[in-house]
Parts: sequence; structure tokens; C-alpha cells
Amino acid sequence: MDFQTVVQRRKMVRSFSGEAVPPEVLEQILGNAQRAPSAGFSQGWAFVVLVGPSETGLFWETISDPEWRADPYRPGLLRAPVVIVPLTDEAAYRARYGEADKAAYGLAESEWPVPYWLVDTSFAAMLILLSAVDAGLGALFTGLNHHDDELMLALGVPPEYRPIGAVVMGWPDGEDKPSPSLARGHRPAESVIHRGRW
Amino acid sequence: MDFQTVVQRRKMVRSFSGEAVPPEVLEQILGNAQRAPSAGFSQGWAFVVLVGPSETGLFWETISDPEWRADPYRPGLLRAPVVIVPLTDEAAYRARYGEADKAAYGLAESEWPVPYWLVDTSFAAMLILLSAVDAGLGALFTGLNHHDDELMLALGVPPEYRPIGAVVMGWPDGEDKPSPSLARGHRPAESVIHRGRW
Repeated sequence: MDFQTVVQRRKMVRSFSGEAVPPEVLEQILGNAQRAPSAGFSQGWAFVVLVGPSETGLFWETISDPEWRADPYRPGLLRAPVVIVPLTDEAAYRARYGEADKAAYGLAESEWPVPYWLVDTSFAAMLILLSAVDAGLGALFTGLNHHDDELMLALGVPPEYRPIGAVVMGWPDGEDKPSPSLARGHRPAESVIHRGRW
Repeated sequence: MDFQTVVQRRKMVRSFSGEAVPPEVLEQILGNAQRAPSAGFSQGWAFVVLVGPSETGLFWETISDPEWRADPYRPGLLRAPVVIVPLTDEAAYRARYGEADKAAYGLAESEWPVPYWLVDTSFAAMLILLSAVDAGLGALFTGLNHHDDELMLALGVPPEYRPIGAVVMGWPDGEDKPSPSLARGHRPAESVIHRGRW
């Protein structure tokens, strides 16, 4: 699909058919995620990939309660055949910036002005969202309802890794309800784009 | 350009011809950045766009010293006709999550499990990097050499906004030196992708 079409079609999808995502499509999407740029090529990220009702069911049961799942709009969301949990690895960045060619930055121990593990993993997550559109799939990026710790425990993730949220993915069933937040509209470009200086 | 081609061609470019980027190309790229998703459609981001030697020169003089700029590989970088500084606005997220439909999340005051202002602005920056490739341009994402505060001051940015780095953009001149970090190679997929659980 043309790049600009992908960008324009990308939106959050919250209702899915439940039909499986072909393995080769999923692998291409995961391959694209690993092409994200990263500071010092640290690649301090990981992805837990959940496929099918047993694995995705564990995800939903860990991050939500029965009341949340009983909302009339949830079944379409919970049918999504794939959930990808992108994780950051801060330790990988500190180790990388302790190496000889990067030590002068002084970032092995000190606080970073920007946590690039979070930026880079977000780059990878954006590639997943766009790659889903390119494949004709729909996807939702969502937070973890404050159950980040429980999810890490349920998935057996080592403590140095932290999730940034989850990408829920599958075939849109067309019964999507747009987020009420969209009614806010885009912010006017003149308040977002500042030319030459603020 | 085909989406998959854009993803495969994307790389960091560090040497530019200095030829100007046509305004309509730059506007399309900035338009794509504003199509990034954001939590609660907060859109808590802004972009300072610097065009031409006077504006980009201020950027480089603020974030580097003469010794850094004297490196033989810098002139090609400093010729880039465009620098975009993506900024996060944490306050916009707290304000958004203080509104009636989001107040139940309790995020107006408390610490967020993930700073989504940083995630969402990174989504926008990734769209900028990919959109540059789609336009035939090259781009570099870079940190600010620990001169984040000086740059904010020089650009007159209000204190609630924080930079995540900068996107340096222009026409590649083909004299690029790949980052030595790339010699590390991609991490093996089996250490990055975890199926079903860690």
C-alpha cells in the first residue's frame, strides 16, 4: 500500500472479527518493529506476542475485571486474535553507553535527559501500528489499566523490562465505535507548529 | 512510495546537500506528524521547525561547541536545511485526564505508569522520519548533547514543554558515513520476540 495511504488510513480499531492473522503477515509486522531506530543501536526493546484466545484471554483477564469486560463494546475488542506487548529495557541502554565509544556521554550511570528506551520502543510500536494498516489489519494501542505489574508477572517478564502498553490487532469487523475523544478534533496547526522559534 | 519500501529504506542520514526542502513537502511531513495517535486524543505535542542556515545555525550553535562542529563529518550534517524539534506537553495530558470522561483514571495528579506524552510525541517523530523517506529525503534523529535547557531558552519554548531530541532533514548527498554502532548488528529475533509468554 502507498505510504501516504497507510498514514491516512491509520486509526485506532476497537472491534475485530476474530479471524486469525496469517503467520507470515504477523512475522512481517514483527520484522518491521525490529527495524526501528535506537540510540547507539541499543535495540533495548522486546515484544511479547500473544496469539489466539488462550494467550490473549490471559492478557485481558490480567488487565481488566469482569465489569470492564461486560461493556457492550468489549466483545469486539476481546475477539482480536493478536496482542503484542512492547517492552523497554533501560539496562540495555546503560550497558551500551558504558561501552568505549559511548562512555564520554556519561550515561551509563547518570539520569538521561530523555529516556530513549521509551522513545525507541515507541518508534517500534508506531511501526507495528502502521504495518498493521499496510496488511489490511486494524490495531489499537492501549494502556494496561494500571495492571502493568500484574501483566509482567503473568507473562514471566524479567524485572528490568517495562511495558509501554499493548497493541491489539486483527481484522476489523466494521462494527467499530470511534473514540469519543476524537470529537475534540485536531488541535489547530498554528498551536502545534512553531516556525523559526516558539 | 510503497509502505514496505519506506520501512526498508529508512536509515539515519548524516550528510546532506544543503538544497532546500520544498515547502509543500515539509508541510506534508508536518501534517503526517499531527496524525499520530495520542492518549485521550490529548495531542500534547508541539514542533519547532527551523528552516535555512540562520535558523538551523542557531540550533547547532546552541547544542554543540566548535570542537564538535570541527569533526570532518559535521559539515555534511550541518548543511541540512531543516531541523524539527519535537516537544512534549505533559500538562496537556494531565488537563485531558482531569476532564469528566477521563477523571476515573485518576491521572490528573498522580504519577502515570507510562509517560504517554513521551510515547505519543515519539509516535509523531517516527511518522516524520518515515515521511521524509517517502519524500526522497534523508533524516537523522538525534539527542541534544545535554543542551536541552539551553535550546529551549534559545527557541523561547514555554517551560512546560520538553524536547525529545531533534529530526535533522534534507537531501542526502551520498557522502554519508554509516554509524559505527550498526556494526553491532541486529539483535537475534529470538532474544527480542517472545511468544505466548517470556
